[in-house]
Amino acid sequence: MSEPAFIAVDWGTTSFRLWLLSRSGAVLAERRSAEGMTTAMRTGFADVLQAHLDAIGAPADLPVLVCGMAGARQGWVEAGYIDVPASLSAVLEGAVRVPGQTRDVRILPGLAQRDKGAPDVMRGEETQLLGALSSGDSGEKLVCMPGTHSKWVTVKDGGVTRFATFMTGELFEAISKQTILSHAVAEAEAFTGEHEAFTAAVRDIYAHPELATNRLFTLRSGQLLHGLAATDAKARLSGIMIGLEIAGAHSQAKRETPVVLIGSGALGALYEGAFTALDIHYTVIDADDAVRRGLLAAANAIWP
Amino acid sequence: MSEPAFIAVDWGTTSFRLWLLSRSGAVLAERRSAEGMTTAMRTGFADVLQAHLDAIGAPADLPVLVCGMAGARQGWVEAGYIDVPASLSAVLEGAVRVPGQTRDVRILPGLAQRDKGAPDVMRGEETQLLGALSSGDSGEKLVCMPGTHSKWVTVKDGGVTRFATFMTGELFEAISKQTILSHAVAEAEAFTGEHEAFTAAVRDIYAHPELATNRLFTLRSGQLLHGLAATDAKARLSGIMIGLEIAGAHSQAKRETPVVLIGSGALGALYEGAFTALDIHYTVIDADDAVRRGLLAAANAIWP
Repeated sequence: MSEPAFIAVDWGTTSFRLWLLSRSGAVLAERRSAEGMTTAMRTGFADVLQAHLDAIGAPADLPVLVCGMAGARQGWVEAGYIDVPASLSAVLEGAVRVPGQTRDVRILPGLAQRDKGAPDVMRGEETQLLGALSSGDSGEKLVCMPGTHSKWVTVKDGGVTRFATFMTGELFEAISKQTILSHAVAEAEAFTGEHEAFTAAVRDIYAHPELATNRLFTLRSGQLLHGLAATDAKARLSGIMIGLEIAGAHSQAKRETPVVLIGSGALGALYEGAFTALDIHYTVIDADDAVRRGLLAAANAIWP
Repeated sequence: MSEPAFIAVDWGTTSFRLWLLSRSGAVLAERRSAEGMTTAMRTGFADVLQAHLDAIGAPADLPVLVCGMAGARQGWVEAGYIDVPASLSAVLEGAVRVPGQTRDVRILPGLAQRDKGAPDVMRGEETQLLGALSSGDSGEKLVCMPGTHSKWVTVKDGGVTRFATFMTGELFEAISKQTILSHAVAEAEAFTGEHEAFTAAVRDIYAHPELATNRLFTLRSGQLLHGLAATDAKARLSGIMIGLEIAGAHSQAKRETPVVLIGSGALGALYEGAFTALDIHYTVIDADDAVRRGLLAAANAIWP
């Protein structure tokens, strides 16, 4: 039988996920809640964590490893950033111990790119990277982590050479809810990454990224002049934002660099559709698996 | 002394402007209010107009020429669209008479580009064009009309060959108020088109438009890593949005095509700064003058 060895926690801005893991990574218990950093800042990080540990009856001496926004300046304890270029093992070495806790609780740092022209930060995604890439990986890869603030990371021989954040998800939300285009997409139904309006927009913007804010207006003018349907309009909006992101990510790397997509669910499927439409070779890793595996690898290294 | 000859009205979504004009264009009286289409849809277009005519004591038989959103489907009387390519004189010929009025009230149509790949519409800006370009103009020009939905129009030998709308102003508002970047720009002070963060962002995005949604994130990461000041952040945001618009507009025309900027105030000055930063040759026409002159030219043609 698997013995519990670590508690692994992915503590984001708006979500909290906890796993009780064996040394080999078997999941012995799991907790999920909406007590992300925003909530925990008010109710107390230690109390939120303890309530979940109590709920699963976690042994008192088990260490806890945390990644994500809990390590931000406004989080529980600031865990700083490791500067890129960096090897992924540098992330493990930068773990910060939370003071005043009986239990050994540590928070992993984020990554920072201090380049004045392209400053960038990530917190949480570095742990997904750790879980998605095996240490023996060689050659160059582009790792894509879609979301509110999508991350594209260039990984070479197990180290991060550079990365870029694209505000795709947040802009998609703001545009579809807070602009004149909200009327065009209000009645939209679900669509997939194979939807023709989506793939056409991805290809159009990948080829002409400079026309992004013009093409957005075609959601309105297409509705006025050609009766563009709401679902097509929303699929086009999504294709414009994702196509622009991929064009930007590719401008910083060779087009033929293999892409590793760390994604799941409907959003992951949209990116798969976009990559297929653009003939980009990709492989997929589940985002949940990746962060859990990353926390496991780090925990095994910190508490051997 | 100048005799009153026409009433000219620019009736937009959120603003109403009226001038009492002589045949030669002398302004004999003027009214401005916030009773744009949105307000007039509720209170009645005829009543809003009559109140302003009463206030200036307009003679009962004077004709009224209107341009702008009052001619939209949800406006007073739908004035339709003239399809491009079109000569500007086609706009005059498309004026629609408002039924049931004792006075001769006409509304000018908009312009439509029915191209399935780049559908576009304008309503009101066609009248600014009419006022800004003299009928004897030859050669090709790019006319830039900045705003919530900026318009770029390619004019050749007095006719409109194509145009494109960019959602620059509306996206600037949504991004600076409705996203995580709102914190970075909240305390910003006024800046000009010569501000270094603005011109640097214009040049960067003009050269790399595909990185627009990545560069937006640098308002946040620049603040975290380098203490980017709020005014610099807001200037950078403005430079990203305007630089992207100019890159898009230039992708549809020759870079050396002369630009006519129909603009005024702080926004016009930002575009002047951007054009200077990009070494783009431009001339400026005041937006208010342009629409009034366009209405005058149309009125003189309709009521000779």
